[in-house]
Amino acid sequence: MAERPASPNRRTNDPEGLRQRLVDTAFAAFTTRGYHSSALHELKREAGVTGGALAHHFPTKKALGLAVIEDRVAEAVESTWITPVRAATTTAEGIQEVFTTIISELERKGVVSGCPLNNLALELSREDEAFQAAIEAIFLRWRTAIADKLRADLRVDRACDFDFDAMATLVVAAYSGAMAMAKATQSVAPLKVCGEQLTSIIRNQTQQGR
Amino acid sequence: MAERPASPNRRTNDPEGLRQRLVDTAFAAFTTRGYHSSALHELKREAGVTGGALAHHFPTKKALGLAVIEDRVAEAVESTWITPVRAATTTAEGIQEVFTTIISELERKGVVSGCPLNNLALELSREDEAFQAAIEAIFLRWRTAIADKLRADLRVDRACDFDFDAMATLVVAAYSGAMAMAKATQSVAPLKVCGEQLTSIIRNQTQQGR
Repeated sequence: MAERPASPNRRTNDPEGLRQRLVDTAFAAFTTRGYHSSALHELKREAGVTGGALAHHFPTKKALGLAVIEDRVAEAVESTWITPVRAATTTAEGIQEVFTTIISELERKGVVSGCPLNNLALELSREDEAFQAAIEAIFLRWRTAIADKLRADLRVDRACDFDFDAMATLVVAAYSGAMAMAKATQSVAPLKVCGEQLTSIIRNQTQQGR
Repeated sequence: MAERPASPNRRTNDPEGLRQRLVDTAFAAFTTRGYHSSALHELKREAGVTGGALAHHFPTKKALGLAVIEDRVAEAVESTWITPVRAATTTAEGIQEVFTTIISELERKGVVSGCPLNNLALELSREDEAFQAAIEAIFLRWRTAIADKLRADLRVDRACDFDFDAMATLVVAAYSGAMAMAKATQSVAPLKVCGEQLTSIIRNQTQQGR
């Protein structure tokens, strides 16, 4: 994309559109090439914005990184995981649907570039406390949504020793690890296997717990 | 460490020691700073070897990367996972022991730098086919050792529908994902939770299968 000339009209008319374009461009770059490997001057060029506009919205690269995590990465986890799990009849069905959708999408694209949250988490969380806190908050919302759904599956009167939070953590860990293995081997097989295992374990345990 | 002068005696007397020192230095650098962020001139300085000695053992950075994966990373997975799982009475006990050992080690060090295999797998496997094949071979040996142990747990006469390979893949994925979460949050909690969940699931399923 050619560099656009500085235009006060453009800045005044659509500052939010420009900010979105910058965050979208940075999200794509940070989650594929990496945060450190993406230079600000490249992002500026790719988004077609001026240096002044970039500095106006994001005075530092860190501010842009935080916006990517808090807006785009959080939104990706919300739409890919949290919304379908909440909408499903049971946790097992929700998880099965999430894995099926992700696997179809990867097969359609023909390339596994990994989970945006994990890619960024591994690169950035030790870097900076603000990054780490933002990443932890997303992991927490993700685990909480699954644990809440498991609790709803088992809404029974009698006590039950099923550990919802622990199972939710296992689901998130197994998905993240399976995606890393899928990326390393460029094959969706680990995701297929782990999706099936997780749903079968949860069906088994929630049936025992009823 | 100061740079050592080129010494034909040194090369002749202990070429294997020098090679080991280079691979050790590169392993430490690649699995913490990353392969791309580690320049050859830094590795040469850190290992205290001459450019000639480096070029003699590893004509390219890729050759050094392959030696790190095939020697050190494979060895780390062997000693951390494969040997203890094989030596344990049951798979569940073996996995529990592996997680306990890793958690103690991380608590002692006070920092979670992640799993060497996963760190390198995520950076390098899409880079180059030789890297990808070497990384896949390690994942396969790891999963096979766990599947074989599960099969031995359940050495019964009657047929059983327990899928050993699928459970082994889930164990490796959950461990890898839990380590990534532990690294992101600098807390061993995800490893503790996943270790307990996996051993409890395997105990439960192997008892059903007997």
